[in-house]
Amino acid sequence: MANTWGKRVTLSIFGESHGPAIGIVIGGLPAGVELDFAFIQAQMQRRAPGRENTTPRKETDELRILSGLYNGKTTGVPLCAVIDNTDVKSGDYDTTVLRPGHADWPAFIKYNGHADMRGGGHFSGRLTAPLVFAGAIAQQILQKEKIVIKAQITQCGDVETAKNDGDSVGGVVECVAEGVPAGLGEPFFCGMESCIASLLFSIPAVKGVEFGGGFALAGMRGSSANDALTVENGQITAKTNHAGGIQGGITTGMPLVVRAAFKPTPTISLPQETVETADMSNVTHAFRGRHDPCIVLRAAVVVEAVVALAILEVIL
Amino acid sequence: MANTWGKRVTLSIFGESHGPAIGIVIGGLPAGVELDFAFIQAQMQRRAPGRENTTPRKETDELRILSGLYNGKTTGVPLCAVIDNTDVKSGDYDTTVLRPGHADWPAFIKYNGHADMRGGGHFSGRLTAPLVFAGAIAQQILQKEKIVIKAQITQCGDVETAKNDGDSVGGVVECVAEGVPAGLGEPFFCGMESCIASLLFSIPAVKGVEFGGGFALAGMRGSSANDALTVENGQITAKTNHAGGIQGGITTGMPLVVRAAFKPTPTISLPQETVETADMSNVTHAFRGRHDPCIVLRAAVVVEAVVALAILEVIL
Amino acid sequence: MANTWGKRVTLSIFGESHGPAIGIVIGGLPAGVELDFAFIQAQMQRRAPGRENTTPRKETDELRILSGLYNGKTTGVPLCAVIDNTDVKSGDYDTTVLRPGHADWPAFIKYNGHADMRGGGHFSGRLTAPLVFAGAIAQQILQKEKIVIKAQITQCGDVETAKNDGDSVGGVVECVAEGVPAGLGEPFFCGMESCIASLLFSIPAVKGVEFGGGFALAGMRGSSANDALTVENGQITAKTNHAGGIQGGITTGMPLVVRAAFKPTPTISLPQETVETADMSNVTHAFRGRHDPCIVLRAAVVVEAVVALAILEVIL
Amino acid sequence: MANTWGKRVTLSIFGESHGPAIGIVIGGLPAGVELDFAFIQAQMQRRAPGRENTTPRKETDELRILSGLYNGKTTGVPLCAVIDNTDVKSGDYDTTVLRPGHADWPAFIKYNGHADMRGGGHFSGRLTAPLVFAGAIAQQILQKEKIVIKAQITQCGDVETAKNDGDSVGGVVECVAEGVPAGLGEPFFCGMESCIASLLFSIPAVKGVEFGGGFALAGMRGSSANDALTVENGQITAKTNHAGGIQGGITTGMPLVVRAAFKPTPTISLPQETVETADMSNVTHAFRGRHDPCIVLRAAVVVEAVVALAILEVIL
Repeated sequence: MANTWGKRVTLSIFGESHGPAIGIVIGGLPAGVELDFAFIQAQMQRRAPGRENTTPRKETDELRILSGLYNGKTTGVPLCAVIDNTDVKSGDYDTTVLRPGHADWPAFIKYNGHADMRGGGHFSGRLTAPLVFAGAIAQQILQKEKIVIKAQITQCGDVETAKNDGDSVGGVVECVAEGVPAGLGEPFFCGMESCIASLLFSIPAVKGVEFGGGFALAGMRGSSANDALTVENGQITAKTNHAGGIQGGITTGMPLVVRAAFKPTPTISLPQETVETADMSNVTHAFRGRHDPCIVLRAAVVVEAVVALAILEVIL
Repeated sequence: MANTWGKRVTLSIFGESHGPAIGIVIGGLPAGVELDFAFIQAQMQRRAPGRENTTPRKETDELRILSGLYNGKTTGVPLCAVIDNTDVKSGDYDTTVLRPGHADWPAFIKYNGHADMRGGGHFSGRLTAPLVFAGAIAQQILQKEKIVIKAQITQCGDVETAKNDGDSVGGVVECVAEGVPAGLGEPFFCGMESCIASLLFSIPAVKGVEFGGGFALAGMRGSSANDALTVENGQITAKTNHAGGIQGGITTGMPLVVRAAFKPTPTISLPQETVETADMSNVTHAFRGRHDPCIVLRAAVVVEAVVALAILEVIL
Repeated sequence: MANTWGKRVTLSIFGESHGPAIGIVIGGLPAGVELDFAFIQAQMQRRAPGRENTTPRKETDELRILSGLYNGKTTGVPLCAVIDNTDVKSGDYDTTVLRPGHADWPAFIKYNGHADMRGGGHFSGRLTAPLVFAGAIAQQILQKEKIVIKAQITQCGDVETAKNDGDSVGGVVECVAEGVPAGLGEPFFCGMESCIASLLFSIPAVKGVEFGGGFALAGMRGSSANDALTVENGQITAKTNHAGGIQGGITTGMPLVVRAAFKPTPTISLPQETVETADMSNVTHAFRGRHDPCIVLRAAVVVEAVVALAILEVIL
Repeated sequence: MANTWGKRVTLSIFGESHGPAIGIVIGGLPAGVELDFAFIQAQMQRRAPGRENTTPRKETDELRILSGLYNGKTTGVPLCAVIDNTDVKSGDYDTTVLRPGHADWPAFIKYNGHADMRGGGHFSGRLTAPLVFAGAIAQQILQKEKIVIKAQITQCGDVETAKNDGDSVGGVVECVAEGVPAGLGEPFFCGMESCIASLLFSIPAVKGVEFGGGFALAGMRGSSANDALTVENGQITAKTNHAGGIQGGITTGMPLVVRAAFKPTPTISLPQETVETADMSNVTHAFRGRHDPCIVLRAAVVVEAVVALAILEVIL
């Protein structure tokens, strides 16, 4: 199975949380795009830890661009961006004890113990930083086409209370893309929903994705769920948007609406029943380290990023 | 954008509801698999209309296999299966009036009016018949590996009541795959959830997908959502399965659990506000034709099929 | 490994020489293209056997289009075309004796004896008929963009003499595409040469591919091999075309020139040393059946087809 | 069009000759492979400039591995290797004057003048260094499977004489892979020849590729070109190897033999007719800079690398 994404805009993500660096190679960007580093930095800041109720790890997230940029503009060939790993305290992590709710367990089996799982390794949420970088470029390109993408938290547990208990909470992020033209996506396998969902489920901790009315539509009747159509200024439009801007995998021109459910941060301070792989024994373990009581607070911009990348993929 | 799916098991679906035929080309099947046509037929029968509360259109769904089969066994080269379209009553359909809730609207724009949208055209649920065929082969191959996949309806509206009103209902299908080995899938873009979701959202009417605890996890705390791990008979296992058998995109060896939300059948008999594209006028229209008051009744086997195909893709 | 080709224009080829039918699914075609069946038929006729010095097998090559065509125009969804296998004389073929120079040997091993190798099975040159069909559509679309693709035989053995001996000859086909715009293709892996070569080597019997000066360039000096550049009417052009219209994988706007070397038809009437797989014995065998003393005579149009498909893939 | 290669082993190459760095992301490597850095270094040394008759540019080619390696072994997740660009003398290059025989011309058009073409930019032969690195890992993995791949120069112009004239020569590299098992590759689009050729034509300056007898087969008769088959120790084998180890796109188990034709180094010291893009004028220009009179001397190991990568792709 491949580790890349995309046919026009191609993404190759790399890096482990406590290795030398993480990064991404982005192929297929148009040439001559002057990168808006203020916007990029602002987006990356939204994801960065160190704010209230996020992990105290200081990720300066200082990006170095190794290729694909010349005189501040994209050259049209693959752009590689690297973030060096600094402020790493590997000693904080007990890598032979599997952390419940993490990828530790299947990764231990899949890689025969060879994966560098310190800090979650390649499965760390830290790997979403390069995605946010790529997404910010995509958003910038789409903004020129009057496509604006915004994500916000629509559901979130009580972070303070959970934090005090050494526990964590989850939540839901909703993303709306305005200005997406009608007719994007292909029927069946390359539908817009398939394309977006494949990227959203790439974000660690996402366990559910729904478009428009989503799961609530399952409880509705057709007469209510169908969006009535009407002609406005010579353009077909809909009176409601239960479809979330996508019918049969194809965009309708209405706002594209998608929600992603995030499970609670799996790393908590409370003792948990788990397995010590060194001797395959059952243990009750309290994990140390720096944790986010609620990753959802940092996740909205990641959702925004991947929705932008998915739209760029089909629009180029 | 491409119209194919898969890197090892490749799927190319084709056909329009009222064209000469629909079908599928399946590449990457191992050679020498003796097809179990009784099982294939049973699966296709579960999807077929004509049973109580399904559309009265008689789809005999008689498959003709054009290639890739010799002496009842797969040859290892692409297998093409075709189902001729019979019992087609195109006169029943008013194709210039857009059916709310269908792909008619975006397809009209995307294809500049060239698409053959009679009966939903290429977007018709009828196109899931070849998927069920392919899925049945996948299931048969996986059963030899002790992987058993079963889908069932876990939520459904009151079909009879809705039918009497000329209306329709939606529902939720849950699919469980038992026996899936640990370690399948790749981190990020080719995770097991991404792979399955991309196929599930290819099924017409699916508007939401969740794994394990899914959206409910967003309201839980980490201490409850995390699956406690334990060693049993020398094997790592989990005491609960909120992860739905997948962590970080990689299978854990626990049962893989996924749910898909189906919106209500968009085609209903009640009058609806919509657009007549012939003169771009607003109309209120009651659509004739043969309708399913609840496609969920036929959808479980389709979910089963695509989950099987996704697992086959990563296990081969 | 996959059995499909392309990211925008997708091709799925299927069928065995003596099975029910052969065919192709073409995805990614634009909607609204009125197919020029006179041109398609003329191209397929160029490939068809039955002319002087080609195999006497009567392939009527009657195409049936199962999808993607409505009122004579493409609908924009996958187009499936099928050619039924008729005039098949399987009794003519001894399928347990491996035919030297054919795929019989590796296919016997790869598919554990399950492949239907009658008449060459899926490896038969007959499978190029659907490619010619797809190529003719591509050529028609490209002609609107003033891109004209013509292939001709530039080297061929003495067919008559070889035929009289029960032997066969090979040859070289050169294809020139005029009007290809500059700037197509991507550096490295998706260069225009890589794209075209991957399709040309898909044609049975092709054992060499070269662009522009090709192998002869290996014996030249830079001062002669480099194409001097000049400005003509404000456009950059070259005084010679040793590059064959491609530099660094990117088209230059000069005529694209490519040559494919075809080995002699492997099926000959002369006795050959080979292996009887029924008892794994060494035998000397004279193969019966209907043979082409020179497939090159029918191959030019196939080369034309795949070059057109490769250009369409990068230009859409 | 994509900038990545591969479905199992994925390659993403990045970098410009005079930018900050060049590198590669390799996905799909098995976990637990202890990298043989002595072998890697030896292979990279074979490609490195600075030896007799190669460019005097000192490429130390010091690789830094950013991910995918832990305790000297592959972790199973994407491996990113970076080579910083040092010893860069951009002042040596006149980037507004198009260098005949280079990608300067089509890149100028494709990227609207935004590409960083100093030293050839992304099209530089320097980008083959990361390919050699990836190939060396592939070779190491294949060697465990008893697959040994060796390339050598089989044709080369008189380097000294050309060098004295400020000119350059081309040549031919032949690569032989011994121990490749029978049955690899897929018929048609993913045949072994298509797979290898797509990578070989990615190497700058390659203008021709042939397998086994190659172009010479076009002049032979079937009775001579066919490889007679025989049983030896219960195994089918061939008495000759005109097929170069591949029939119908599938490996036969015989040595895989492929040749690539390299045009002469396009950069020469002699004055050449070309275009100054600053004012679109015709000029005669002698290019300064450090040149290789014969890149073929460094190219054998690059051919070895890509053949290894292609085989790894189909064998995993």
